[in-house]
Amino acid sequence: MRGFRTDLAMESIGDGSGGIEGVQVSQQQMGEISRTRIVIESRRAAEALSRPRGEYITLACDSLSRCDTDNRKRLVQLIAQGVRAMLPKDGEILVVGLGNRNVTADALGTRVVERMLVTRHLREAMAEEMQGKLRGVSAIAPGVLGLTGIETAELCRGLIGHVQPAAVIAIDALAAYESARICTTVQITDTGIEPGSGVGNHRLGLTYDTLGVKVIAVGVPMVVYASTIARDAMTRLMDEYGLMEDQHSPAAELLFRQISESFLGDMVVTPREIDEMVLSVADLLSDGLNRALQPALDEEMLHTYLHG
Amino acid sequence: MRGFRTDLAMESIGDGSGGIEGVQVSQQQMGEISRTRIVIESRRAAEALSRPRGEYITLACDSLSRCDTDNRKRLVQLIAQGVRAMLPKDGEILVVGLGNRNVTADALGTRVVERMLVTRHLREAMAEEMQGKLRGVSAIAPGVLGLTGIETAELCRGLIGHVQPAAVIAIDALAAYESARICTTVQITDTGIEPGSGVGNHRLGLTYDTLGVKVIAVGVPMVVYASTIARDAMTRLMDEYGLMEDQHSPAAELLFRQISESFLGDMVVTPREIDEMVLSVADLLSDGLNRALQPALDEEMLHTYLHG
Amino acid sequence: MRGFRTDLAMESIGDGSGGIEGVQVSQQQMGEISRTRIVIESRRAAEALSRPRGEYITLACDSLSRCDTDNRKRLVQLIAQGVRAMLPKDGEILVVGLGNRNVTADALGTRVVERMLVTRHLREAMAEEMQGKLRGVSAIAPGVLGLTGIETAELCRGLIGHVQPAAVIAIDALAAYESARICTTVQITDTGIEPGSGVGNHRLGLTYDTLGVKVIAVGVPMVVYASTIARDAMTRLMDEYGLMEDQHSPAAELLFRQISESFLGDMVVTPREIDEMVLSVADLLSDGLNRALQPALDEEMLHTYLHG
Amino acid sequence: MRGFRTDLAMESIGDGSGGIEGVQVSQQQMGEISRTRIVIESRRAAEALSRPRGEYITLACDSLSRCDTDNRKRLVQLIAQGVRAMLPKDGEILVVGLGNRNVTADALGTRVVERMLVTRHLREAMAEEMQGKLRGVSAIAPGVLGLTGIETAELCRGLIGHVQPAAVIAIDALAAYESARICTTVQITDTGIEPGSGVGNHRLGLTYDTLGVKVIAVGVPMVVYASTIARDAMTRLMDEYGLMEDQHSPAAELLFRQISESFLGDMVVTPREIDEMVLSVADLLSDGLNRALQPALDEEMLHTYLHG
Repeated sequence: MRGFRTDLAMESIGDGSGGIEGVQVSQQQMGEISRTRIVIESRRAAEALSRPRGEYITLACDSLSRCDTDNRKRLVQLIAQGVRAMLPKDGEILVVGLGNRNVTADALGTRVVERMLVTRHLREAMAEEMQGKLRGVSAIAPGVLGLTGIETAELCRGLIGHVQPAAVIAIDALAAYESARICTTVQITDTGIEPGSGVGNHRLGLTYDTLGVKVIAVGVPMVVYASTIARDAMTRLMDEYGLMEDQHSPAAELLFRQISESFLGDMVVTPREIDEMVLSVADLLSDGLNRALQPALDEEMLHTYLHG
Repeated sequence: MRGFRTDLAMESIGDGSGGIEGVQVSQQQMGEISRTRIVIESRRAAEALSRPRGEYITLACDSLSRCDTDNRKRLVQLIAQGVRAMLPKDGEILVVGLGNRNVTADALGTRVVERMLVTRHLREAMAEEMQGKLRGVSAIAPGVLGLTGIETAELCRGLIGHVQPAAVIAIDALAAYESARICTTVQITDTGIEPGSGVGNHRLGLTYDTLGVKVIAVGVPMVVYASTIARDAMTRLMDEYGLMEDQHSPAAELLFRQISESFLGDMVVTPREIDEMVLSVADLLSDGLNRALQPALDEEMLHTYLHG
Repeated sequence: MRGFRTDLAMESIGDGSGGIEGVQVSQQQMGEISRTRIVIESRRAAEALSRPRGEYITLACDSLSRCDTDNRKRLVQLIAQGVRAMLPKDGEILVVGLGNRNVTADALGTRVVERMLVTRHLREAMAEEMQGKLRGVSAIAPGVLGLTGIETAELCRGLIGHVQPAAVIAIDALAAYESARICTTVQITDTGIEPGSGVGNHRLGLTYDTLGVKVIAVGVPMVVYASTIARDAMTRLMDEYGLMEDQHSPAAELLFRQISESFLGDMVVTPREIDEMVLSVADLLSDGLNRALQPALDEEMLHTYLHG
Repeated sequence: MRGFRTDLAMESIGDGSGGIEGVQVSQQQMGEISRTRIVIESRRAAEALSRPRGEYITLACDSLSRCDTDNRKRLVQLIAQGVRAMLPKDGEILVVGLGNRNVTADALGTRVVERMLVTRHLREAMAEEMQGKLRGVSAIAPGVLGLTGIETAELCRGLIGHVQPAAVIAIDALAAYESARICTTVQITDTGIEPGSGVGNHRLGLTYDTLGVKVIAVGVPMVVYASTIARDAMTRLMDEYGLMEDQHSPAAELLFRQISESFLGDMVVTPREIDEMVLSVADLLSDGLNRALQPALDEEMLHTYLHG
C-alpha cells in the first residue's frame, strides 16, 4: 500500500491479520458498529507505519450520516467514551476546528465547533454548585493559512498561552485510502494532528510538541485522493494479470506517477451528497463531544443549554 | 472510449483526427481560448455518438474561474455570441437552472439563475421606448425531483404553457471524461438537455420534444465519475503492457465492472476548491447570458440593472 | 389600530373583549401554549376586519424557537391537528414556500419546503400496501417575482394544472403589529394568502379564487414594520397625555405619515438573532406539517424517510 | 439626544452648527459623497461626547451598496486614503473582523476579512524585489464570545504577541441613531473599538490600551435599535405639541423606558434587503482596505492576487 495516502491508522496497518510487532490491535462488534483499538507502542512500529506512537480508536458502521436512531445513540456514546478516556480529569478544554469552512469536504471541523456547548465565559456568572458540574469549554475555528496568513498551530499557541486549557481537542476532515471509509469511520487518537494530514494538508501539526498540551484528534474521512483511486485500480489490474512483481518496477512507477500527477494534488473523490453528509456527521461528533465534556448534563439539559 | 460517461460532445468524437461521416468539426484559437464547433448532421452519426443531431459549441481555456481580465472578457463575448446565434430573434426567454442547489458541484444552474437580469415583470411598467430595447426574461431554478416530487421537465411544461417563451435556456453542471475538463470548458448546444445527463442525472430530458419550444443548453463540467478515473487508469495500464486486445475480454470487463461498482454511482471527482469555482463560473456564464439576452444594454447599464 | 399593518387575524380583532358581530372566538390554554380559534362568518365582519371569511387558528407561546422539549412536542401536535382538520381527506397535496430565500426574515417558506417529506415521485415505486399509507406530497419554493419575473400565483397555477393536488399548503413569513408576536405565534387559516401580505408583500394572493383549489396558509410573524413601531410609540404617548381625540386630527396624521415615510417601506424590526430563529421555526413547522400529511408514519419512520 | 444609542461620532456631535469646544469639524463634498473629519482634541470634549479623543473620518452617500461605478470608485479611493493616513508607514498589519457571522446584520466584519488579500504567509516564498512591494497582512474573524467562550480582545492579545503587527484594523457593523445612516455611511477612526459598541455589543473594547498597538476601526451602520425608533417618534411628537420641557419629566422618562424595554435589547431595525447589502458593503470596504494596504499593486494585480 506504499504511496497511498491515508489519515487512518486502521488503513495503515492493513488487515492486520499477520500482526505487527509493537502494535496492539483489539476489536469489538456492537450491533452494526465495530470498534477497533490500535496502540502503537514501539518506536520501531511507529516508524514502520509512519505514524506516531499512541492510541487510535476507530468506530465504523455502514453510514455515519444515515444510521437509524439506535445506532446513532450507540455511536454518540462510543465517541463520548473514547474521548472521555483520553481527557485529563480536570481543567478547561479548548476545541479547535481545523480546515476551510468554504470547502465543503474540509468544513467538518468548523461545523463541529459551531455545535459545541461553549461554557468558559458562563462559569463566572454561575452558581457555585453549577460551576462544579460544568467543565469550562472554549471553541474556535480559526480558518486555514491561505485565508488568514497565520498557521493554525501558531494561532493556537497564542491562544493556549492565554486560555491555559488542560488539553486541546482538534477536529478535522480526513483523507482515506478506501472510498468506502468516507463518512463511515470515526478516528479518535491521543497523538494529535500530524503535519501533512487532513483534507487541507496542514503544514504544521497540532501535537503535544507544537502546543505544549495534550492534543486529542477526532476525525472522519471525507475524501479519497483521485490519484489513490487511479493507483488502486492499476494495482488491482496488475494483480489480476499476475504482474505483481512488476508493481515496483521503474516503468510501473513512472506510469503510476504520470497518471497521479495528471490529476494534480487537489482532485478529490467524494460522494455526490457530501454537503449534506458533512452537516450530519458534524451533528454526530458534536453530540459525542458535548457528552464527553459535560457528563453531568443529561440529554435534555444539553439540548436546553445549546438551543434553549 | 466505450463505457465512459461524458456530457461533452467534444469528448465523444475523440481527437476527431480521422473524421466521422455526418459530423462537421471546425476549430479556432483566440489567444488562450479555443472554440470548437461540432455539427452532428446525419441520424447515423447521431446514433454512433449516442448524441442528438444539432450544433455544439465548445469553448476551452486553462481555467474558467481564474483567467485574467482579457481572457475573461473574451470568454464572456464568445459565450454571448454562441448563445445569441441560437436564440430566436424575438420573443421572451425562460432561463431554467437545473441541478440541486444543496450539492456544491450540482448547483451551477441555480447559481447562474440567481445572477440573471430578470425583466419580464418590469416591461409593463417601462416607457415604450425602453420596452423595445429590453428582451423579456424570466428565470427559475425549480430544484430536483428528490426535493420537489416533480420532474423538472413536467414543471417547465406547466410554466411554458403560461409564460409562452420563444425559447428556453437550460443551465446545468456536466460530467466529463477527462478531469482536465472540469471548470475549463463551456458547452453550448441547441439540442437541449438529454435524459441521463448532468451531475444529478436528469430522468427526463429538456428538449424540443418534451417542452415544445427550442431548448438551448449551456453547461460546464464540474465532476468526473470516480469509476471513469478507475477505468481510465486501467486502460492506460493495459496499453502500456500491450494488453490492448484484452481490454474487451470478459475477464477485463468483469474487473472493470467490479471496480466501478465498488465506487457506487454517486462518487465523483472534483477539485478541492470546487465551492469557489462554481461561483466564479456562474459569474462568467451569467455575464455571457445577460449580454446575449440584452444586446441593447452596455456593461455599465447591465451592472446598474443587476445591482443598482 | 387603523393604519397599522398586521397579517394576524388575532391582532385585527383586538382584545376581542367586546365581541364583534359575525366573529366567533374561542380560546384554550394548554400548559404554556394558548390556542385561539377565530371564525369570521359574515361578509360584514370580513369587511370590517379587512380579512376574508374563514377559520383562523392561532397558537402562541413565549418562544417558538427556544421552548423546552415538552412544549415543542405539544406545538408540533397542535400544528398537525390544526392543519389536518383543514385538509381534504384524500388526494395529493402541494406545499408552496413563499418569500425570498436570500432575505433572512422572508426565507421561512423556503426553509420549511426544504424540510418537507416529499413523496409524490416515490409512490409509483412503492409496494401497494405502503402506497395506501403514504399521502402524495410535492413541494416547491419558486422564489419571488423580483428574482424570477413570474408571480408566484401564476407559477402555481401552471403547476396545479399539472400536479392536480387536492389542496395547497402555503407557508409564509408574516408581519405583525406587536413585536412580541415575532417567533412566538403560528397562524393556520383556510383562507389562503391575501394580496399585500407577508414580509415580501405578495402582489397577488394565493387563494381558492386565484388557484382553483383550497389553500391552507401557515405563517409565523418574523418582522414588525418600523413605521408600526413609530406609530405605536406616538399613540401611546398621546394616550398618556390625554390627546386621544387628537389622534385622528389632520395634524397628527400628517406627523404620523412624515415619520412613517421617513423609514420607507422596507425598514423592518426583527430580533438580532432572527437568522437562527428562522431555522428553528422552520424545523417546528415542518415537523407539524409532515405529521399532518403522513399520519400513518410514526416519528421514527418520518425521521428515517427524511434523513435515512 | 441623550439616551439614544449611536456608534457614529458624527451623530454624537449633532448638527454641529454651534460648535463644541475642543472639537474640530471640517467637511468636503465630492460629487454625491460628503467627507467629514472630526477631531476630538480635549479630554473635556471627549467626556461631553462620551467618545475617546482622536480622529473620525465619515464618508456618506445615498447608498453604499447601490451607487454607480463612478461614485463607487471614489468611495474606494476615499476609504483607502482615510485608512492609509492612519496606518504606520511600515510593518505588518492584522485585520480583525468583529461580529457574529451567523447574524446577518452583524456579519460585516467577517465578510470583509474573507475578501482581504492575505500576504503574511506568502512573503517568505517571494522574490526579494516583490517582498519590498507587498505589505504583510494577516486577517482573522475569530467569532463572538457566545460562540467561542473567548473575548475577541483576549484572543487578539494572544495573536498580537505572536504576529507582532505594527497596527490592527478592526472592522465592525455599527448601530446608528438615524435609520437613514444604515448602509450609507463609513466611519474610519484611529481610536479603535469602544466597549459596548457594535451590533453585537462588545464587552471589551479593542483599543491601544487593551491591545498594545494602534487600532484603526472601520465601521458601517447596519442597524438602529428599535427602542431608538420609538424614542425618536415620541420626541418628535412632543416637539410638535409643544411639550418640549416635558421631555425630561419623570413621567415622560418612565413612558420612554416602558416602551423601550418592551422591545428588549435585541430588537433592531434594518432594511429588508440587509442580507444583500452586507455583502455589497463588504466588497466596497475590502476594496478600499486592500488598496490602502497594498499601494504598490494596481487594480488588475490586486484582482489577480485575490481571484487568480
